Amino acid sequence: MTRHGFVVNVRPEKREEYLALHRAVWTRVEEAMSEQGIRNYTIFILDDTLFGYYEYAGDDYEADMAKIQLDATSQQWWELTGPCQTPFGTPAPGELWREMTPAWHLD
Amino acid sequence: MTRHGFVVNVRPEKREEYLALHRAVWTRVEEAMSEQGIRNYTIFILDDTLFGYYEYAGDDYEADMAKIQLDATSQQWWELTGPCQTPFGTPAPGELWREMTPAWHLD
Repeated sequence: MTRHGFVVNVRPEKREEYLALHRAVWTRVEEAMSEQGIRNYTIFILDDTLFGYYEYAGDDYEADMAKIQLDATSQQWWELTGPCQTPFGTPAPGELWREMTPAWHLD
Repeated sequence: MTRHGFVVNVRPEKREEYLALHRAVWTRVEEAMSEQGIRNYTIFILDDTLFGYYEYAGDDYEADMAKIQLDATSQQWWELTGPCQTPFGTPAPGELWREMTPAWHLD
């Protein structure tokens, strides 16, 4: 199992829209992640910053994440959530949620 | 079980010191947290921002966190780590690590 942390900002004027979407998240969007080994996924918010934490239970992370990217319903979902977000700090080209690096862990 | 997310900034000039401390964290500091129900604790870093995620397995969160605050070895540890950190965003008086709010969860 691997642990992953990500950060992104929410656009202040879209904050409530983003939260409302996640109070009524589409079943297929969750299913697509579960099918590819995503577990125990929580998104936290403070002010205009979102932090996501999840665990990955599969054995080919890159391939499984690529499969989620191809899911048609997830793509429709991101058409709604994407405009609510803006990168945190200085992103690489095309980067939205930026992956963080684990610095310490306690079981 | 409850899930908790926290965010703080690291002072750029103390970034390496903070990471080095966590590569050799004191056994008693980890023990004090484990004794009070802290589980699956990961600290992530990106640029100068730290994100902490943990789960709490006890049944009196406030009381158990207060017990950790009283641990003498943990207090010595924070004398080293505290000066490496500076609050993220606009903290309340005395606030260092700021607790985030869960916005969505997938088991």
